[in-house]
Amino acid sequence: MKTVAVRNIERAAGTVINQLEDCGVATVHEARGREGLLKPVVRAICPGTRIAGSAVTILTQPGDNWMIHVAIELCKPGDVLVVACTADNTDGMFGDLLATSAKAFGIKGLVTDTGVRDVRELQAMDFPVWARAVSAKGTVKNTLGSVNVPIVCAGQVVNPGDVVVADDDGVVVVPRHAAEIVLSAAKNRELNEDEKRQQLAVGVSSLDIYEMRPKLEAAGLVYLENPSDLDQ
Amino acid sequence: MKTVAVRNIERAAGTVINQLEDCGVATVHEARGREGLLKPVVRAICPGTRIAGSAVTILTQPGDNWMIHVAIELCKPGDVLVVACTADNTDGMFGDLLATSAKAFGIKGLVTDTGVRDVRELQAMDFPVWARAVSAKGTVKNTLGSVNVPIVCAGQVVNPGDVVVADDDGVVVVPRHAAEIVLSAAKNRELNEDEKRQQLAVGVSSLDIYEMRPKLEAAGLVYLENPSDLDQ
Amino acid sequence: MKTVAVRNIERAAGTVINQLEDCGVATVHEARGREGLLKPVVRAICPGTRIAGSAVTILTQPGDNWMIHVAIELCKPGDVLVVACTADNTDGMFGDLLATSAKAFGIKGLVTDTGVRDVRELQAMDFPVWARAVSAKGTVKNTLGSVNVPIVCAGQVVNPGDVVVADDDGVVVVPRHAAEIVLSAAKNRELNEDEKRQQLAVGVSSLDIYEMRPKLEAAGLVYLENPSDLDQ
Amino acid sequence: MKTVAVRNIERAAGTVINQLEDCGVATVHEARGREGLLKPVVRAICPGTRIAGSAVTILTQPGDNWMIHVAIELCKPGDVLVVACTADNTDGMFGDLLATSAKAFGIKGLVTDTGVRDVRELQAMDFPVWARAVSAKGTVKNTLGSVNVPIVCAGQVVNPGDVVVADDDGVVVVPRHAAEIVLSAAKNRELNEDEKRQQLAVGVSSLDIYEMRPKLEAAGLVYLENPSDLDQ
Amino acid sequence: MKTVAVRNIERAAGTVINQLEDCGVATVHEARGREGLLKPVVRAICPGTRIAGSAVTILTQPGDNWMIHVAIELCKPGDVLVVACTADNTDGMFGDLLATSAKAFGIKGLVTDTGVRDVRELQAMDFPVWARAVSAKGTVKNTLGSVNVPIVCAGQVVNPGDVVVADDDGVVVVPRHAAEIVLSAAKNRELNEDEKRQQLAVGVSSLDIYEMRPKLEAAGLVYLENPSDLDQ
Amino acid sequence: MKTVAVRNIERAAGTVINQLEDCGVATVHEARGREGLLKPVVRAICPGTRIAGSAVTILTQPGDNWMIHVAIELCKPGDVLVVACTADNTDGMFGDLLATSAKAFGIKGLVTDTGVRDVRELQAMDFPVWARAVSAKGTVKNTLGSVNVPIVCAGQVVNPGDVVVADDDGVVVVPRHAAEIVLSAAKNRELNEDEKRQQLAVGVSSLDIYEMRPKLEAAGLVYLENPSDLDQ
Repeated sequence: MKTVAVRNIERAAGTVINQLEDCGVATVHEARGREGLLKPVVRAICPGTRIAGSAVTILTQPGDNWMIHVAIELCKPGDVLVVACTADNTDGMFGDLLATSAKAFGIKGLVTDTGVRDVRELQAMDFPVWARAVSAKGTVKNTLGSVNVPIVCAGQVVNPGDVVVADDDGVVVVPRHAAEIVLSAAKNRELNEDEKRQQLAVGVSSLDIYEMRPKLEAAGLVYLENPSDLDQ
Repeated sequence: MKTVAVRNIERAAGTVINQLEDCGVATVHEARGREGLLKPVVRAICPGTRIAGSAVTILTQPGDNWMIHVAIELCKPGDVLVVACTADNTDGMFGDLLATSAKAFGIKGLVTDTGVRDVRELQAMDFPVWARAVSAKGTVKNTLGSVNVPIVCAGQVVNPGDVVVADDDGVVVVPRHAAEIVLSAAKNRELNEDEKRQQLAVGVSSLDIYEMRPKLEAAGLVYLENPSDLDQ
Repeated sequence: MKTVAVRNIERAAGTVINQLEDCGVATVHEARGREGLLKPVVRAICPGTRIAGSAVTILTQPGDNWMIHVAIELCKPGDVLVVACTADNTDGMFGDLLATSAKAFGIKGLVTDTGVRDVRELQAMDFPVWARAVSAKGTVKNTLGSVNVPIVCAGQVVNPGDVVVADDDGVVVVPRHAAEIVLSAAKNRELNEDEKRQQLAVGVSSLDIYEMRPKLEAAGLVYLENPSDLDQ
Repeated sequence: MKTVAVRNIERAAGTVINQLEDCGVATVHEARGREGLLKPVVRAICPGTRIAGSAVTILTQPGDNWMIHVAIELCKPGDVLVVACTADNTDGMFGDLLATSAKAFGIKGLVTDTGVRDVRELQAMDFPVWARAVSAKGTVKNTLGSVNVPIVCAGQVVNPGDVVVADDDGVVVVPRHAAEIVLSAAKNRELNEDEKRQQLAVGVSSLDIYEMRPKLEAAGLVYLENPSDLDQ
Repeated sequence: MKTVAVRNIERAAGTVINQLEDCGVATVHEARGREGLLKPVVRAICPGTRIAGSAVTILTQPGDNWMIHVAIELCKPGDVLVVACTADNTDGMFGDLLATSAKAFGIKGLVTDTGVRDVRELQAMDFPVWARAVSAKGTVKNTLGSVNVPIVCAGQVVNPGDVVVADDDGVVVVPRHAAEIVLSAAKNRELNEDEKRQQLAVGVSSLDIYEMRPKLEAAGLVYLENPSDLDQ
Repeated sequence: MKTVAVRNIERAAGTVINQLEDCGVATVHEARGREGLLKPVVRAICPGTRIAGSAVTILTQPGDNWMIHVAIELCKPGDVLVVACTADNTDGMFGDLLATSAKAFGIKGLVTDTGVRDVRELQAMDFPVWARAVSAKGTVKNTLGSVNVPIVCAGQVVNPGDVVVADDDGVVVVPRHAAEIVLSAAKNRELNEDEKRQQLAVGVSSLDIYEMRPKLEAAGLVYLENPSDLDQ
C-alpha cells in the first residue's frame, strides 16, 4: 500500500458545491444517473443536517485513526473528511477532540465507513457525522494509511476533491469534474419534480403523469376486480 | 408469479381500526396471541407516530417500485401501503413524490421491507413510514409484481384488507376477520394492565402479582444469600 | 447451568458511581485502559440520557424474561439491570410494566443484549434503556436462568455489583474493585483533554500536540505535493 | 397463538413428488413462476443431496424444540420436517437422536429456519438437513408451538402437505394443489433448457438464442469499441 | 489494558482432555449444563476434524496478529490457541506459516473470533482451525495485546488452561477445574443417549421415551384430526 | 449511469497471469502491498480451485442478469467474469446455462458480489465461481447496466483487463499495468517464505526469525511467570 499524504488537491467551485448542498442527496444521486451513492450502512448520526464539501480522503487501518490526525491540517475551509478502512471496523475513530480540531480548520463534517464516538458532544457542537456505527472504543496511532489517495468508501470510489453531499438520506459522491453538469441536471430535475408534485398533490395518478399505463399493459399486468378472481 | 392488480378489497370497520390504533402495537400483538408481528428489521423511520389502517399489499421486484405506482390509485382513505419484495433489497422505493400522491388518496402511511428516501421531507409532511433501510437509491419501473395479493412482509403473511398497526415498537398485522375479536382482547388486556401497573408502581413485585413464586420453586430456582455461596 | 438468584451483592460507593456517570462512557472506557466496552450492537434506545449504577446481572433464555421478574425485587435504588441471553435473541423482554416496577424499586435503567418494547412509554416515563433491538414480541416465563451471577453481555464480562455507565456512545463496565482507580484516571483524562481541546480549538494540529511528526516519519509516511506525484 | 397439532394432512401424489425431486430446486422454482423459494439464509448443511417430500410444518419457540418431538410421530414415510420459529434463533433444535427417530418414521430430511447440531453424525447417517446455522446449543421443551398449521419459514408460506424440494441450491415450496402443474412446467423447462444448452455449448450467444439484441438496442445499450471511448 | 504475556499456566490432565475430545462438542456442551458454547459465528474451516486441548488465550487488536507470534512459543504439546479481538475483525490473522510454527510446538489447532487464510494449505497440513471468516488479508505487528489472560471469545469467557473442544458442531469451553466432572457427566449422557437411540431407531416416539405426553397436555396442547378443524 | 458495453479491452500477458495463479491469493495480496482483496463476503462456492484471468467487468442491477448475457460474447479465452451490482443482492444471477455458454467462450470462472445457482452442476462441469450467496432465485432481463467499465466489487475497484486471482482464500485484483511487478514481488515473497517455513518447522520462534523481541519490549510487553502475577 502506498502510505502517502498528498498536500494539495483540486476542488470544485464553492458556488457549485453550495448549490449541490441545497439540492440534497436524493436529487443529486438521480442527477448523477443514479451513481455514487454510498451503501446505506453509512447513516446520519446527527439527523437533520445537510452538508456538501470537497472530499479529503483518508484510508485507515482497523482500530487505528492515525491518518485522520494527518489529514486535518491538510484541509481547507469547506472540506469534508471521508474515511475508509482496509477492513470492516466499527471502532470510534473520531470524537469531540478531533471535531474541535476539524472545526478550527473549517471542516464541515465527516463521512466514515467506521465508527464515531462522543455523539452527544458532536451534535452539541454542530459538527455533523455520517458513520457505520457509534462506538466509544478508542483507536491507536501505530500503522500508516494514506491521505488524499483514491479510496472505496461504503462501496463507492471517492477521489480527493470530489464533492460529497450528505443528509438524512445518506451520502452521495460527485466527481469533481462532473460537479457542474450534475448540478445542472439536479436543477432540471427539481423543476420537473415541482411540476409533478403539484399534479400528484391534487390526486392525479403517477400512472398518468409518467404515462405508464400502456407500458404496464404491454408488460402483461392484469387487473382483477376482486381477490376471488385470483383463484380462477 | 401472478402479475395482477386487484382493484377491490374488503376492509375492516373504520371504528375497529381506529381503536386498534389507540391500543398500539405491543398490546395488539399480545391480544392476537403473540402472532403477526413483523421482524424488527422493519423499524419506524419517523419516530413518535402511531397509525392503523387497511393493508393494500404490494409485491415488488428488487430495485423496482413500479407496483407502488400501480397500487396508490387503488387505495381508499385510511389505507396503509404494505410492500414486500421478492428478494432482500434496501433501495429507496418510496420518497416524497409518491408520498405526495399517497396523501392525495388519503393513505395514512407506508410499511416496507425495502428502503425509503426523502426522510426529512416525509417527516415534514407527516407521512409516517416503517422500513428496513434508508437509501436515496432510485428504482426503475421495468418489471411487474402484484397489488393486493397475499404477501410475506418481514416474516409475516399480510392479506389485502388486513389491519396493520404501526408505531415505535414496530408493525403488527391483524387478519381482517379477526379485527373485532383482537380489539376486544386488546381492551381487556389494557384494563388488566392498568390494574397491574398500579400495583407495580407502589412496589409490589411482579412475582406476587403473577403468582410466580410457586412456579419458580417447582422449576428449581435456588436463592443464595451471597455470591460466595455459588462456589459451594 | 446454575439456575440461582443471589440476593445480596456488594456495590461500589455511590459517590464514585455518580462521578463516573458525569465522566461518560468514552472517557471511562479510555480510563479503564480501553477495556469493558459492550459491542456497539447494544445501542441507546432513549437517546440523550446518561446513567451509571451497580449491575444486577440477569441471564435469560431466548424468548423468556422470567429472570427479569426475579431480579427486580433484589435491586436497590441506583442499580442498573444488565441482561444477557444464552443465544442471540431480539424479543421484547422488557416494557412499560416492568419499567414501572423497576422504577418503584429505584432502578435507574436497563442494559440488555436482547430487545425491548413500549419505547415511547419508556421515554415518556424517563426510564432509559440500551438494547440490541426494539421488538414488540412478548416473552414467556417458562425456563430458568440466573440472577447475580457473572454474565457475558455483548462481548463483555459483567459481574454483579460492577459499575455500568451508559450514554449515547454505548455502555461500559467497570469492575467494582477498580471503580475508584478508574474514576481517578478518568478525571485526569478530562483535565488533560480540556487542555488539548483549547489548543485544538485555536488551530494547533494534533500532530504537534501529540508530537506525532517524528513517529510518522519513522514509520515511513511520505508527503507528496500533488496527486500527480502518486504516479511517479 | 393456536397451540395445536393436526394429525392428518393431505399430501401430493408420490410419483409427482419424486419427479419434482429429479427436477431440482432451480428448475422447480422457475416452473413455479419464480415463487416459493426460501431465503438463502437457509442453506444445505449436508451438501450433495437432493430430496423432495410432503411438508409437516412445525412452529417452534426460540430455544425450544418441543414441537419437533410432537411432529415426528405424525409423519408418514416420505415427509419432510419444515421448522419455523417465532423469532430468529440459531439454537441446535435438531441432532442425531431426533434424526434417528425421524428415520424410523421414514422422514426424508429436515428444513429449518433455526440451527442444527451433530452435523457429522447427520451426514454419516445420510439424513440431510437445511438450516440457518450449525450450533451445538441444546434446547428446552417448555413452551408450546404448533404442528401442521400454515407457517412462514425463511420468508415463504408453507402449508402442511405442500411439496418441499431441497438441494445444494436451497429450498423451494410448491403448494400441494399446484404440484402437478408445476411438474409439467418443470419438465417443459428441462426440455427447453436442454435444447439451449446444446446451442450454448457450441458457442452460440444467449443474445441470439433469446433474441435479446433488438431489446437491448431499444433499451439504449451502446457498444463502444474501446475503453477510451468512454471519456468522449 | 494489561499488555502482558503469562508464561506458565495450569492445564487439565491429558487423559481427561482426550476423553472430552472423544465425546465431542454437543455432548460436552450438554454435560456442562449447556454452558460454554461459542457463538456459531465461529465455525469449522476444516470440516471433519475433532480436537480438544488446553487453551492458550490471546487477545489481539483488529488488524494485528502480533500476540499470536508471542503466544506460540509459550505453548506445550496438546495446547489449542484461542484468539479474541478487541473489536469485530475478519482479517486473516493466521495462515500456513504460523501453522507450521504451531505444529512444531505441538499445538493441536486454532480457534479464533477473527479470520484465517491459507485454508487449502491448513487442510493439507492437517492443522484444523475454527474461525469467524476466511480472509487473505494480512495483519501488522504494531499494537500489543495479551497472552494467557482471561478473554471473551465469541461470547464465552475462556481462561488460560481451560479445555477447549472443537468439531463440526462448533467450539465449547470447559473450565479447567470442572473438566473431570464434565467428563463424567458426558459419559453418563452418552450411555443414556445410546439407550434412547436404540429405542428411537425402532420407532418408539420420543414423547414416550421422555414421558412428555402428560406435560404437553398440561401445557394445553390440543390435537386436531384435520386442518379444517383449525377454523372451528 | 453509463449503459455501455465496451468490446475490446487490453489484457496482461498470459504467462504473467498463469504465474500469478500459481502464487495464489494470499501471496499475491501481500505482494500487492496488501491492496486489492475483495471483502470476504465473496467466498469460494466450489472449494479446492484456483484460477487467474483477465477481468471482464459487469455492472448489473438487482434481480437482473441481462448484462452477463451481453458480456460473455465479448470475452476471450482465459477471461474471468467479475460482476458487481448497484445494490446488495443475493439473487442467482448465474447458473449452469450461462456457465455452459461461458465455457464455450473459454472463460475460466466467475466472481460475483451477488448470488449463483446450480452449484452442483457448476462443480460437476468444473466451472468455479466465487459469490456472496447461493440462491436459486432467477433474474429478469429488463434493465441495462454496463460491461467493461470500472466497477466496485465487494469493496475493490476492478478495471476491465485487471488480473483477478481467486482460490479458497478469496479473490484479489491486480491492476493490469502492475501485474509484472506484483508477480516479481510475489515470487520474492515465496522464496522468503520458504526459508522461514523451514526455520519455523524445526521450532525456531517467529519472534526470533522476525527479530520481534526488541520491538515487543520497546512497546512495553511484560512477561509474567504465572497468572497469579496478574493481580499484583
